Amino acid sequence: MITHITLDDLEDLALGAAVLGTGGGGDPYIGKLFARAAIEEHGPVRLLSLDEVPDAVRVLTCGAMGAPTILIEKIASGDEMGLAFDTYEAHTGSKVEAVMPFEAGGVNSTIPVMIAAKRGLPLVDADGMGRAFPQLEMETFNVYGVPASPVAIADEQGNTGIIQTSSAAKAEWIARGITIRMGGQAYIANYGMDGATARRVSVPGTVSLAIGIGRTLREARENHQDMIQALIDFFATTHYEEARIVGSGKITDVSRRMENGWSVGIATIEPFGGGTPMQIRIQNENLVVEQGEDVLAIVPDLICLLDVDTAEPILTERLRYGQRVNILAVRVPPIMRTPEALAVFGPKAFGLKHEYTGLGLEA
Amino acid sequence: MITHITLDDLEDLALGAAVLGTGGGGDPYIGKLFARAAIEEHGPVRLLSLDEVPDAVRVLTCGAMGAPTILIEKIASGDEMGLAFDTYEAHTGSKVEAVMPFEAGGVNSTIPVMIAAKRGLPLVDADGMGRAFPQLEMETFNVYGVPASPVAIADEQGNTGIIQTSSAAKAEWIARGITIRMGGQAYIANYGMDGATARRVSVPGTVSLAIGIGRTLREARENHQDMIQALIDFFATTHYEEARIVGSGKITDVSRRMENGWSVGIATIEPFGGGTPMQIRIQNENLVVEQGEDVLAIVPDLICLLDVDTAEPILTERLRYGQRVNILAVRVPPIMRTPEALAVFGPKAFGLKHEYTGLGLEA
Repeated sequence: MITHITLDDLEDLALGAAVLGTGGGGDPYIGKLFARAAIEEHGPVRLLSLDEVPDAVRVLTCGAMGAPTILIEKIASGDEMGLAFDTYEAHTGSKVEAVMPFEAGGVNSTIPVMIAAKRGLPLVDADGMGRAFPQLEMETFNVYGVPASPVAIADEQGNTGIIQTSSAAKAEWIARGITIRMGGQAYIANYGMDGATARRVSVPGTVSLAIGIGRTLREARENHQDMIQALIDFFATTHYEEARIVGSGKITDVSRRMENGWSVGIATIEPFGGGTPMQIRIQNENLVVEQGEDVLAIVPDLICLLDVDTAEPILTERLRYGQRVNILAVRVPPIMRTPEALAVFGPKAFGLKHEYTGLGLEA
Repeated sequence: MITHITLDDLEDLALGAAVLGTGGGGDPYIGKLFARAAIEEHGPVRLLSLDEVPDAVRVLTCGAMGAPTILIEKIASGDEMGLAFDTYEAHTGSKVEAVMPFEAGGVNSTIPVMIAAKRGLPLVDADGMGRAFPQLEMETFNVYGVPASPVAIADEQGNTGIIQTSSAAKAEWIARGITIRMGGQAYIANYGMDGATARRVSVPGTVSLAIGIGRTLREARENHQDMIQALIDFFATTHYEEARIVGSGKITDVSRRMENGWSVGIATIEPFGGGTPMQIRIQNENLVVEQGEDVLAIVPDLICLLDVDTAEPILTERLRYGQRVNILAVRVPPIMRTPEALAVFGPKAFGLKHEYTGLGLEA
C-alpha cells in the first residue's frame, strides 16, 4: 500500500504510465522531471485511496492537452498547471483541496504529482480514463455525470482561459481549439467534484497501478526474469485482471500525420513467424490491432507495444521501421466496460465499426 | 445632436454602418432586427457623447466575431451578448454601466444597441475602429494602451469562455480559435475601461456618424439628389473630412475563400471608360484598391463599393460578376493615422507592402 509518492517512486510511475499510455498520453519523461523538482523542493506527495478521501473534499482533476509529438518540442515552463489551478479557483471562488489525474497514462500521470507537491495537496489514487485517451470527454467522470465545465486552461506564456459548455464533448471541442491556438499544447484543470462523487465516478487505484507496473518491470529486469510474464501476472492481481500478448513482430510501416491537433496514423507489424500482417490504428493512442479480418484487441482495452528485448513501452511518436515489438493487450476494469462507458470511449466513439467484447471475454 | 437611438434611427444606422463596414463587418440587417426588437420592448437607447461620459463609469465594448459569410447562415439566438456580458461581469465582479461598440462598421454597430436597450444602459457614441476591421487587436483601445483581456465570449448554444492573454494580438488569436470552434461566429465583450480612458482612446462620434451617413443617403435619394455627392459633402463636415470616388466600373471577377475564419479574396473591376483593371484585396473588409502600379486607396482609409444606381454599399459576401460600382474612399480621422495606430492597423499589419499616406494627403 503506497501512502506517499517519493522521489524513489517516480521512475516506476513514469514507466508504468507509459504502459498505461497505450502509445499515447505524452512522454512521461518531461512530467517526471517537473514532479522530481517539485518533490525535491516540497517533499513527498500524500496518496489517498478513494476510500480515504473525505466526502466533502474539493477534488480537481488535471492534465495536459495536446498532441504528444508537440510535447517533446514545446518545453513547458512548469508554472502552467499552477496558473490553471489559480484560474479555476478564482473562477469558482473556492480552494482546491485534493488533486486527481484525469488520465493515468503518459505525462498526465506525473503532472498532477507535480502540482500536488507544489500546492501541498494530497493526490487521489484514481483517474477518469484508467489509461490514456485522446479526448477530454472520454472520462468516467463524464460517463457517470460529472460536468466537464468549468474548464481552466493555461499555456507556458501565461495565457489563460475558462470555458463553460453544455457538454463534455463541446468542452473537448473548444478546449482543443484553444490548445491548438496555444501552440498545440496546453494545461487543463477541470471536472471539479467532491470526494463522495470522486469515489463513485473514478477508476480506482490507477496511480499506484502505474507505480506497480513500473516496479514489476524494473524488478523483473533486475532479477533477470521474464518481464512480460511478470507484468501479466501483476495485472492478474489488479481489477484489470486480464493481460496477454496478442501478437509479436517487426514494424514494417508507420504512417502518421497531424490532424485536428492529434497524431493519427497506422502502424503495420509483420509477425515474426510470417503470416498476415497486423495493423494498429492510432489516434494519439493505439485504438485497435487487426490481423486481416480478426480484431486482436480494441479500445477501451489497452494495446501497448513493448520492445521485444527490453519490454520498454514504445510511444506512438517514437514508432519506426524495424522495431521488434510484443503487442500487449490489457482488459479494462468493469467501471470502464458498462454500456454507458462504451458509448463514450468504446469503438464507435472512435468511428470504428467493431463491437467491443473485452479481452478474454469473447464468446 | 442625437441623444437617443430610436426605432426611426435604426434604418439609417444600419445603412451607415454598412458604408463604414467597407465591405465587411457583417450584414447589419440581422443586428438591426435584434436592436429593433430590443428597443420595441425596452425603449430608446440613450446615446452619450464621449464628453458626457462620467470619468468613473465602467464601459464595456462588444461586438460579434467571425466571418461575415457565416453570420448570414448561422442564426443568432439574440441572447449571446447578454451571456457574454454576464460572463464578463461574473469574472470581474463588477457591473457594466455603459456599452460601446468596438467596431462602428457592419453588424457590430447594431449589436451594442441591442444589448444597451436590453440592459437599460447608455451607449457611448464612439468605437475603437472608426470603421470595420477583421481583427480584435485592430482597435484604438489597444493602440492607446487598454488591455484586450479579459475577453468574454459566448455562442448561441450557451457555451461561454473567458480568456486572459499577454497581448491583444494573442487575445485575437485565441478568441478566433474559440470562434471557429463555436461554428465560425461568436459574441465578444472585452476592452473594459472607465469613462476617462474611453475619452482618451476611442474614435469619437462614430455611432452618430453612421446614423448621419445613412440619413444623408436616404434624404438624398428621397430628394432625387446626387447621393454620392451628398455623402462626400457630409463626410467633409465630420472629422473624417476627406471622401472621394477613386474609381468606377464593372466587377469582372471575384475570387473568395474561407481562410483561418476570415473571408479573403480579390475583386477585379473593369473601369467603365476602359483602361487598366482595378483590383481590391479583401480580408473580410476591403484592404486596398490598386490599378496597375498605382494605389488608389489603402487601409486604414475606408474603401466602400457602392452600387452605381442605388448607392447601396455592397458587402464582400454579396460581390458578384457584373455589378456596377463606384469605389468610394474615405480618410480616417487623426487618432487612426498616428504611427502607433498604423503599426496596428496600417498596411503592414495586413502584410501589404505599400506605405500609408492618407487620402488627399499625398505629397
